[in-house]
Amino acid sequence: MEHNIHTLLKKLAEGTVSVEEAELALKAAPFVDLGFAKVDMHRKIRQGAGEVIYGAGKTAEEISDIISAMQSHGQEHILITRLSEEKYSALAPSLGQNAVYNARAGLCVIGGTVRPDGLGKIVVATGGTSDIPVAEEAAATAEFLGNEVLRLYDVGVAGLHRLLPHVEELMSANVIIAIAGMEGALASVVGGLADCPVIAVPTSVGYGASFGGLSALLSMLNSCASGVSVVNIDNGFGAAFIASRINHPKMHTKKA
Amino acid sequence: MEHNIHTLLKKLAEGTVSVEEAELALKAAPFVDLGFAKVDMHRKIRQGAGEVIYGAGKTAEEISDIISAMQSHGQEHILITRLSEEKYSALAPSLGQNAVYNARAGLCVIGGTVRPDGLGKIVVATGGTSDIPVAEEAAATAEFLGNEVLRLYDVGVAGLHRLLPHVEELMSANVIIAIAGMEGALASVVGGLADCPVIAVPTSVGYGASFGGLSALLSMLNSCASGVSVVNIDNGFGAAFIASRINHPKMHTKKA
Amino acid sequence: MEHNIHTLLKKLAEGTVSVEEAELALKAAPFVDLGFAKVDMHRKIRQGAGEVIYGAGKTAEEISDIISAMQSHGQEHILITRLSEEKYSALAPSLGQNAVYNARAGLCVIGGTVRPDGLGKIVVATGGTSDIPVAEEAAATAEFLGNEVLRLYDVGVAGLHRLLPHVEELMSANVIIAIAGMEGALASVVGGLADCPVIAVPTSVGYGASFGGLSALLSMLNSCASGVSVVNIDNGFGAAFIASRINHPKMHTKKA
Amino acid sequence: MEHNIHTLLKKLAEGTVSVEEAELALKAAPFVDLGFAKVDMHRKIRQGAGEVIYGAGKTAEEISDIISAMQSHGQEHILITRLSEEKYSALAPSLGQNAVYNARAGLCVIGGTVRPDGLGKIVVATGGTSDIPVAEEAAATAEFLGNEVLRLYDVGVAGLHRLLPHVEELMSANVIIAIAGMEGALASVVGGLADCPVIAVPTSVGYGASFGGLSALLSMLNSCASGVSVVNIDNGFGAAFIASRINHPKMHTKKA
Amino acid sequence: MEHNIHTLLKKLAEGTVSVEEAELALKAAPFVDLGFAKVDMHRKIRQGAGEVIYGAGKTAEEISDIISAMQSHGQEHILITRLSEEKYSALAPSLGQNAVYNARAGLCVIGGTVRPDGLGKIVVATGGTSDIPVAEEAAATAEFLGNEVLRLYDVGVAGLHRLLPHVEELMSANVIIAIAGMEGALASVVGGLADCPVIAVPTSVGYGASFGGLSALLSMLNSCASGVSVVNIDNGFGAAFIASRINHPKMHTKKA
Amino acid sequence: MEHNIHTLLKKLAEGTVSVEEAELALKAAPFVDLGFAKVDMHRKIRQGAGEVIYGAGKTAEEISDIISAMQSHGQEHILITRLSEEKYSALAPSLGQNAVYNARAGLCVIGGTVRPDGLGKIVVATGGTSDIPVAEEAAATAEFLGNEVLRLYDVGVAGLHRLLPHVEELMSANVIIAIAGMEGALASVVGGLADCPVIAVPTSVGYGASFGGLSALLSMLNSCASGVSVVNIDNGFGAAFIASRINHPKMHTKKA
Amino acid sequence: MEHNIHTLLKKLAEGTVSVEEAELALKAAPFVDLGFAKVDMHRKIRQGAGEVIYGAGKTAEEISDIISAMQSHGQEHILITRLSEEKYSALAPSLGQNAVYNARAGLCVIGGTVRPDGLGKIVVATGGTSDIPVAEEAAATAEFLGNEVLRLYDVGVAGLHRLLPHVEELMSANVIIAIAGMEGALASVVGGLADCPVIAVPTSVGYGASFGGLSALLSMLNSCASGVSVVNIDNGFGAAFIASRINHPKMHTKKA
Amino acid sequence: MEHNIHTLLKKLAEGTVSVEEAELALKAAPFVDLGFAKVDMHRKIRQGAGEVIYGAGKTAEEISDIISAMQSHGQEHILITRLSEEKYSALAPSLGQNAVYNARAGLCVIGGTVRPDGLGKIVVATGGTSDIPVAEEAAATAEFLGNEVLRLYDVGVAGLHRLLPHVEELMSANVIIAIAGMEGALASVVGGLADCPVIAVPTSVGYGASFGGLSALLSMLNSCASGVSVVNIDNGFGAAFIASRINHPKMHTKKA
Repeated sequence: MEHNIHTLLKKLAEGTVSVEEAELALKAAPFVDLGFAKVDMHRKIRQGAGEVIYGAGKTAEEISDIISAMQSHGQEHILITRLSEEKYSALAPSLGQNAVYNARAGLCVIGGTVRPDGLGKIVVATGGTSDIPVAEEAAATAEFLGNEVLRLYDVGVAGLHRLLPHVEELMSANVIIAIAGMEGALASVVGGLADCPVIAVPTSVGYGASFGGLSALLSMLNSCASGVSVVNIDNGFGAAFIASRINHPKMHTKKA
Repeated sequence: MEHNIHTLLKKLAEGTVSVEEAELALKAAPFVDLGFAKVDMHRKIRQGAGEVIYGAGKTAEEISDIISAMQSHGQEHILITRLSEEKYSALAPSLGQNAVYNARAGLCVIGGTVRPDGLGKIVVATGGTSDIPVAEEAAATAEFLGNEVLRLYDVGVAGLHRLLPHVEELMSANVIIAIAGMEGALASVVGGLADCPVIAVPTSVGYGASFGGLSALLSMLNSCASGVSVVNIDNGFGAAFIASRINHPKMHTKKA
Repeated sequence: MEHNIHTLLKKLAEGTVSVEEAELALKAAPFVDLGFAKVDMHRKIRQGAGEVIYGAGKTAEEISDIISAMQSHGQEHILITRLSEEKYSALAPSLGQNAVYNARAGLCVIGGTVRPDGLGKIVVATGGTSDIPVAEEAAATAEFLGNEVLRLYDVGVAGLHRLLPHVEELMSANVIIAIAGMEGALASVVGGLADCPVIAVPTSVGYGASFGGLSALLSMLNSCASGVSVVNIDNGFGAAFIASRINHPKMHTKKA
Repeated sequence: MEHNIHTLLKKLAEGTVSVEEAELALKAAPFVDLGFAKVDMHRKIRQGAGEVIYGAGKTAEEISDIISAMQSHGQEHILITRLSEEKYSALAPSLGQNAVYNARAGLCVIGGTVRPDGLGKIVVATGGTSDIPVAEEAAATAEFLGNEVLRLYDVGVAGLHRLLPHVEELMSANVIIAIAGMEGALASVVGGLADCPVIAVPTSVGYGASFGGLSALLSMLNSCASGVSVVNIDNGFGAAFIASRINHPKMHTKKA
Repeated sequence: MEHNIHTLLKKLAEGTVSVEEAELALKAAPFVDLGFAKVDMHRKIRQGAGEVIYGAGKTAEEISDIISAMQSHGQEHILITRLSEEKYSALAPSLGQNAVYNARAGLCVIGGTVRPDGLGKIVVATGGTSDIPVAEEAAATAEFLGNEVLRLYDVGVAGLHRLLPHVEELMSANVIIAIAGMEGALASVVGGLADCPVIAVPTSVGYGASFGGLSALLSMLNSCASGVSVVNIDNGFGAAFIASRINHPKMHTKKA
Repeated sequence: MEHNIHTLLKKLAEGTVSVEEAELALKAAPFVDLGFAKVDMHRKIRQGAGEVIYGAGKTAEEISDIISAMQSHGQEHILITRLSEEKYSALAPSLGQNAVYNARAGLCVIGGTVRPDGLGKIVVATGGTSDIPVAEEAAATAEFLGNEVLRLYDVGVAGLHRLLPHVEELMSANVIIAIAGMEGALASVVGGLADCPVIAVPTSVGYGASFGGLSALLSMLNSCASGVSVVNIDNGFGAAFIASRINHPKMHTKKA
Repeated sequence: MEHNIHTLLKKLAEGTVSVEEAELALKAAPFVDLGFAKVDMHRKIRQGAGEVIYGAGKTAEEISDIISAMQSHGQEHILITRLSEEKYSALAPSLGQNAVYNARAGLCVIGGTVRPDGLGKIVVATGGTSDIPVAEEAAATAEFLGNEVLRLYDVGVAGLHRLLPHVEELMSANVIIAIAGMEGALASVVGGLADCPVIAVPTSVGYGASFGGLSALLSMLNSCASGVSVVNIDNGFGAAFIASRINHPKMHTKKA
Repeated sequence: MEHNIHTLLKKLAEGTVSVEEAELALKAAPFVDLGFAKVDMHRKIRQGAGEVIYGAGKTAEEISDIISAMQSHGQEHILITRLSEEKYSALAPSLGQNAVYNARAGLCVIGGTVRPDGLGKIVVATGGTSDIPVAEEAAATAEFLGNEVLRLYDVGVAGLHRLLPHVEELMSANVIIAIAGMEGALASVVGGLADCPVIAVPTSVGYGASFGGLSALLSMLNSCASGVSVVNIDNGFGAAFIASRINHPKMHTKKA
């Protein structure tokens, strides 16, 4: 089956696929219609990643159906994010033995660990201990996507003496994910030290004028350090996804 | 004349001042009514500071009248803040020789320099060069109020190597005024290093999501470093005023 | 062991500590790694305060482990803030007899009361009765940090006759902590009367357009009274921490 | 001609006016159509006030046409608000001798002064000198609407000693208009002292976190003093209009 | 005992009260100190209203103590607002027979009904049925304060045919309280029809972009109708308080 | 009975209805006063729709009374929106057999299905699966109002390959309702493809910087595609109501 | 040349166009590349409208080049919006005789008037006179797109007597565009009266808490009247565009 | 001289540099103190980039001094951003022949073009023509930093037919910079198509509810497409800086 819309359209023009085949390919094949969701079976090929299910807002039964549909199409490696312990407990019996639940990250990996094949390490750093759930979502996602991960938790800036002993580790990263709530200054300080891309994740940790992560978000967007870009509040998954892409450049793969 | 409302009321009760005298004291004396403003002649005594005129929103002529009224009541030491060069030029002829204009700070000091008599030094630190006008307002105000000031400009956190060489100077402060725009991380980093009170001043320096200083303001309020409090955006004067009070504790003076 | 990064680096250069010792000192010693948090054993020395545990977002078990680690390093005097009654109940058996829980402030002090050794008194004033939990956090923290505290609760401005009888007490303060929700006018009124630094704490008390403390926060930042600076909404601890620093100036101590 | 829609509809039903007359009355009479604006000639009767032209966003020529239309319908007493000096200069030749321009308030009164006929005095108080233009708009409007006005300018709360000498004057008011920018605390303090309705006007005076008057607006809405209500930022006219209505109760008039 | 600070101060000066008496009068008498709240016994005299207890954030026990203190000082007529049914049930046994609870308004009146003695009627109008709890708080408060109240509920503007039949009733008011959530247009429409002061109350009724009442609040502040002023979101009590003051002008009373 | 205020007023003038009849018609007839709500019996005629009850904030008993009142006036076709399952269960016994509850949409239809009589189809499209409850509210409302509805769920833009196979279906619509949370880009993409009016509905789906639907709302308002207008966050009903009006133009009906 | 991407792709598959032709059609033909902008020559066919140039942010020279490119492709009927008088003056010589500039609307129509061919009338109503520029942009755009337009200006709600005489005209509309600044209540009132779709346009008219149109925007989104949807602040063009689509339903055209 | 603080500290410990040398290296060498700015001469080495001067807020004279200082330290390759034409004209005489000014981007490159040495291409795409200044800042910066750049301007989503012909070019990128104002949907659409990291740049292009770029910013942060991260509004430079780092991975370089 064609894995690329672009290629498919070309072949359609060339006549190597018929209109009927093309329509089938376009409309039917990549989607298994479960009534409530279009499960996209081409995603791995198009985007180079294992399949991910965003668990929030789906029932355990719906998640189970999606997993079954994926597995029946040969997708063995599946990540479920934003999965509460309750839903996991309901799902567990049907998941089989190779499902591992990470309670702190609120995610579940099916299909075993992945051998890291990126250019280098991804360092996941947090300002405080309360940021760890977001950090674990990022770290576990990055590992699922084939990256070596180094965790540096609770190295927040209000005490540079905590961060400075880890400068060498920061310098060893190919990408850094900097996670912090409250005033989010970690991103600026890490960004000033690092010589690699920094993906900043504001967290909703804080109270009062942190306004649910807004303060950290604005700080990170205004960082006076170059080389920092930002994802949504608490979006550990998103940070890991782009970090993994940075760590797996297309060009490098092609040359290799 | 009585310099203290509290004392005055007591004396009124004791009969050592008459109702007429008291009313005169309360209503007439401390204010010279210029029609457009009540010039407060008791302020120095009540609050322990030289007189300050907030120049924004007043015409040169109005400022000139206020100065004259003050001087005719014996007030020799006057600070005019938020004074544009245009207004200063208009004022200059009438100010006499002991008026000094600080163009970067946009303020003018009348009555010469003041001998520092505080407990220690006030360090005024900025993140970047664009924060300097606010910093100069703070530094010149602090000097006017009798403080020794050490300026540490452009030591912003996106490059800890800029800040670290100055740790010793930071440690020499009795109060630190930390001034930064953009993400305002300077306050957190300085707050984490310092062992004295830190007054943070967000500046409106920045663009886009800095929202006129809001980003720096929220950062500073959410600082994970203890020992930091915050004044209004660009309020260098206010920071210096409270820093000077911290540097001139009442108790100390009484004991001395 | 070295208690000062700066000094340590100097000695490293002088050769009085070896690289290995220095690395050990920098990396290992001040932190006891509990897996989920880096407990910082040098904090008291660096910042001149007893140790503080921020209880929100930590389980009773985690708090207990941190306390044990602290105590095994000789830290006897410990403050736990944002500690709910539930967590306190779970902790109580392991805390021993010298732990005192303050339910209104939601904090627990271990190690007994501290003799006040500051320059003067810290006055903690609130606008209404609903602000008292924040005020108690401030007052109890200030006492923990070695300050004499005078509580003036429910003296809000909508009724100056409530505040005016306390002018003399306000005047006796070396630092004032002014705590108010709703429109936060207390800070301005107190700031106008006082002749010492005022730390303003907006509270989330109110409804409707108080927007969780935003109204009081903005009021306090815009206070037309000089000598006022502001901490985060509901941050009684932070206000007490900086007030205590103001009340314990480094310079004074050195001279004494 | 009928001055009341309600009465007109009744008469229509009773047959004392014909459909044609009624339609004429409803559609044509109260409006003089100038193409760009429907000038409402019934307003005085319906709402008990002289006619007001909001000058902002209208050209001098348009304003002149509206005045002519009004005058040709017998309306002699006209107030033009938000009228810049430029527009006034352009208008002046055509206004005749009984037009008086108030530059500080940015308004012009045509038709001479009005004898006060309200229940009592309206006190217009401001926090600072920068609030005076808004206060003058309020005071001049109130006078135009037939009220005795007492001006208390620059009595701001950051210095209660400024406000306290005026308590007796405040107590003499039937309505108070409290005008302040920055943190707007004046409304709360005045509201706490007063025993009459207080109309609060936030002004856009301030900088930084005053956010164009938002801070004062929120303060005033959250005032812990009862008896305070609020109009739009800088809306001196609106405050005077409702204050005048309060000072001219219908019931009172009917009984008299 | 003196009921007026101003008068007291005068007498203090005249010597008709001693310093000790004056101090007693000022400091002790008007406040019964319950430890957690300063109950203000002079309020009725100073502000011309019965005593009001804001029930939110106080325990039933605290409320009970305040009531007892009031009653022991002769205060018979008491209003408790923001009182949940749970708290009322806990209070009920100790309240005696003349306490009436209004569940929709969440308030309780002690001391029986009050004979209306205002100039005219207060009309309380709401846009929809969901605004009724706020309206009942306003209406019951106004009745408690001695006003005749006319309720016009569910007359919202999205259907002028609902409002128009009530124009005559609106015209009969001496003050109108216009209460609406969502877009708050009721205030403008009523303000355009009315010839008396309109106090607008935005409510938190709505969803999505109503942002908890912000949309209605802004609408009402920007009302193009003159004669409208605004209180805080859901503040039925505050609206009734100022409406009652408008309906009981001081001047009128003096003349009568 | 007259179904049109305008017509009624005319007839009143013509004398074909008496004042008494007219007053009756205006005031009494169209409203059944249930004490807590004015049930409007003329709505179908005035606005061309079946009757709708907004269930949020009403008790099951109140809803039941409104239904009874409607049915006793011959209204057979009733839609209840924002009706939770709990309330529905309480209502069910009294609703009879022709009531159908749609749990995903949270609404109930009484009176059976309606034959579509609009110009064409209404397409209801969603970005993701979490937007389906809002979409079902829109779709079921549109069907209730006499429209053929085509549902296109989970065709969000982050994967144009999902949307592109449905272009032909989008092109078949007479009106499109585009429903999306998070960044709301669906409205722009659909708006760029479509050749019919697009009603965009932002949803509160998302987290962090989606701020409860604000992000999607702003996106849709700023859509660079022409032909898009927007309703309130989560307002599926409102989108369907205007879409139905577009699909049932008055002019068309008159001509047919 | 093919006017429809969908059709083109089909033909590509059928072989009736070659790959080269298809590529040419897709990439080259519909765009004339002017270096700074891709002028889209297919737009009229795809979206059924004459061509529109958004003038803001383009120089007179750039606009002139775009017009020339359009005209050389046979596009005779062109609308230029957001065109200042300065730019128009610069353009005028090259525009020829059939260009008409509308100064109040800030737009220019090339190619003469268009015969209305919609289902019915579009009524453009404004709250005040200051909203007229936005209204003229809407009205002139609607006329350009082939609609009969009825202007009802200055009928704002703060004076229902202004609006009520126009009810019959409102009722004659097939679509209403309701334009208002300040509190935007016009949309709700018109929405409650109308029996056709209402497109609401908030304007930036107002001051203070109107926050540049935000207040009107929120009001309109929260309108309690059904049948109202909203476009961006000041977006008269967008309102007219969707109104024209509503007034030219595809289905109707096909049947005719 | 040492180019690495870390290495320097190590050598300090080893004794291969003396304390004096180390202090000199740390404090003096990397900074040339110009009084108003600390010019950082180590930046190229530390962060792998040529030197960049942020021109906004600096006078032409200050910029000239910084350039001279850089050049005297051997820095030949210099980029000046946010440089207005006025400042450039003032600078031009002193810049010599190898300075090239890019007026659309508002930047100047000194030292000639750089040979691209990254892994692949950086594609810079914009939604409209008004986004081009920001895009040029990004593109020119990326070229300065040694990247091959492909510009795809005006391919905005409201017309997928504009974007789709460029899918192949998008697929050729190693990093994509997606720049858009208004609703910012470009980032989501590109993010859904791309298989490489996407750096999104919101621009302040738009009006009304775009709120100076806020709408686009929120959209991009909430993008439902994975692989997207965001920089500050209008921050073309920042996007290019991180994109260049992604395109020049450290690990790759080391292996090569």
